[in-house]
Amino acid sequence: MKILILGTGGTIASAKTERGYKASLSVDEILKIAGIKKRDGVKLESRDILNLDSTLLQPEDWKTIGKAVFEAFGEYDGVVITHGTDTLAYTSSALSFMIRNPPVPVVLTGSMLPITEPESDAPRNLRTALTFAEKGFPGIYVAFMDKIMLGTRVSKVHSTGLNAFQSVNYPDIAYVKEGKLLVRHRPPLPTGEPEFDPDIDPNVAHLRLTPGLSPEVFLAVANNVHGIILEGYGAGGIPYRGRDLLSAVENVSGKKPVVMTTQALYGGVDLTRYEVGRRALEAGVIPAGDMTKEATLVKLMWALGHTRDVAEIREIMGKNLAGEVREV
Amino acid sequence: MKILILGTGGTIASAKTERGYKASLSVDEILKIAGIKKRDGVKLESRDILNLDSTLLQPEDWKTIGKAVFEAFGEYDGVVITHGTDTLAYTSSALSFMIRNPPVPVVLTGSMLPITEPESDAPRNLRTALTFAEKGFPGIYVAFMDKIMLGTRVSKVHSTGLNAFQSVNYPDIAYVKEGKLLVRHRPPLPTGEPEFDPDIDPNVAHLRLTPGLSPEVFLAVANNVHGIILEGYGAGGIPYRGRDLLSAVENVSGKKPVVMTTQALYGGVDLTRYEVGRRALEAGVIPAGDMTKEATLVKLMWALGHTRDVAEIREIMGKNLAGEVREV
Repeated sequence: MKILILGTGGTIASAKTERGYKASLSVDEILKIAGIKKRDGVKLESRDILNLDSTLLQPEDWKTIGKAVFEAFGEYDGVVITHGTDTLAYTSSALSFMIRNPPVPVVLTGSMLPITEPESDAPRNLRTALTFAEKGFPGIYVAFMDKIMLGTRVSKVHSTGLNAFQSVNYPDIAYVKEGKLLVRHRPPLPTGEPEFDPDIDPNVAHLRLTPGLSPEVFLAVANNVHGIILEGYGAGGIPYRGRDLLSAVENVSGKKPVVMTTQALYGGVDLTRYEVGRRALEAGVIPAGDMTKEATLVKLMWALGHTRDVAEIREIMGKNLAGEVREV
Repeated sequence: MKILILGTGGTIASAKTERGYKASLSVDEILKIAGIKKRDGVKLESRDILNLDSTLLQPEDWKTIGKAVFEAFGEYDGVVITHGTDTLAYTSSALSFMIRNPPVPVVLTGSMLPITEPESDAPRNLRTALTFAEKGFPGIYVAFMDKIMLGTRVSKVHSTGLNAFQSVNYPDIAYVKEGKLLVRHRPPLPTGEPEFDPDIDPNVAHLRLTPGLSPEVFLAVANNVHGIILEGYGAGGIPYRGRDLLSAVENVSGKKPVVMTTQALYGGVDLTRYEVGRRALEAGVIPAGDMTKEATLVKLMWALGHTRDVAEIREIMGKNLAGEVREV
């Protein structure tokens, strides 16, 4: 069995500098510090693609990472990607849309404390990721704190705690305990041929709906992008009292997709429940359903990379492509 | 003992219509359906101020609600406010900044299921709120699902579940069990004279940092507001690779406040930890610390209502006014 470990940087690759932590170590150095040499019957190979704080990662980098993953499929039985935690959930979502039908487990991981710190969670997370890459099933996953989560369902929920990621509106896939894999939820597995479909349009923005948000701000954003995500309250809805945001949305939604997600971490949007939601639907808003904000953003970019037709984008956004959304 | 219940609408006041739920009931009707008539030695009075889905509430409404609360101080021993859940955390934050040194408990509550539904959480939440208004201590609080939370620390974390609110980066204040109040954390209580200080500038926007966010979008928003909140990743930081958002922020931050909060629900921002954060600090970004996103927005509006000087706003944002932030 052969596992490829791709390095992209992040806290897991960080060392202390005079100006705070900075990504600088190679995968081989990380493995060495983590004390991970050889695993039973498994050959580990490594490749460093990027070495960056993941705050700096751009959508174009997802293609670079995706290409390296896709090229590994013939030769390796599993792929582990070390990554900064800040945009890890965006990258795991992006790989899930770009890589159709991955034939092996692809597991992203990282750490909250640099591998160079004695208390670092990096060795533990790496071992969890490797265990799933070796014994798990095909798909794009995230390994963190003994948990395996679906790549399209994770969000970073804590900026300091070690249990920093959660699977949102979806069960955890598996846990790793003392090297053993305990499967909790087996998602539908890919069936078709592997395909690399990386076309995206990164020209998207995400604006939070806040009391008093002026229609002018919404339009200023909309004028500068090809698609806009509006992060509503609770189940979703757009205000029209005092400041008429609803009309501004209606003016845009025929030409450019306006997708509504929610500020609530859990539960997703349901625009049929309240009158303010119904009005939003009538104004042409595309509901993000129970998708994470990260998956919503990347999926909108991916949809725009394939079509600019709003009706087609609406259909793509509502359709389950990689476990990211419960179809309604 | 006299308690005033102020009605503003929301799901708690909702009845089913052909177009989804809509706020329509008065406080007296809510109390009647909830089976709350008289409480031992407590006189309940009610007043309907607004009757709206809280998605529709605007910053100007916070003044209306705040004024009604402030005027009740001489006559009542406690105030309960029924409110929609969608912007409840914004209103509780706004009241906390607008009403300095409240001399009695002010408790906001609402429900996830309309009072007109048999399984509604409204009666339970109302009883929790009333119990704290009667037996609790001065300040602005939120009562939900047997919990009492500090008004500046709550976020709505679930769009469907009944346990929809959490106290973020701060302990719960108290629990109510079978009518008994169990205090868990006593926050520093107000000491000075009550004061109503409602000046705010609602001309603010909140933009989520997402991979590939173009500097043009940031500047388009910044040009249309007096202050901008940028919701970064994890501990905070601004990208400068590929797309130079950092320079755009630097160009704005001397003239208008650019406040950085985080996408992670828990843990807050710390711009000193990573190099990308240090650079953001050097570019003039104001860290939101461990404040909720709701408190951050309202506090920025409140600060801008008092000064347009960026250095003064930075000082206000970092100073603890109502339990909203841990000073560093």
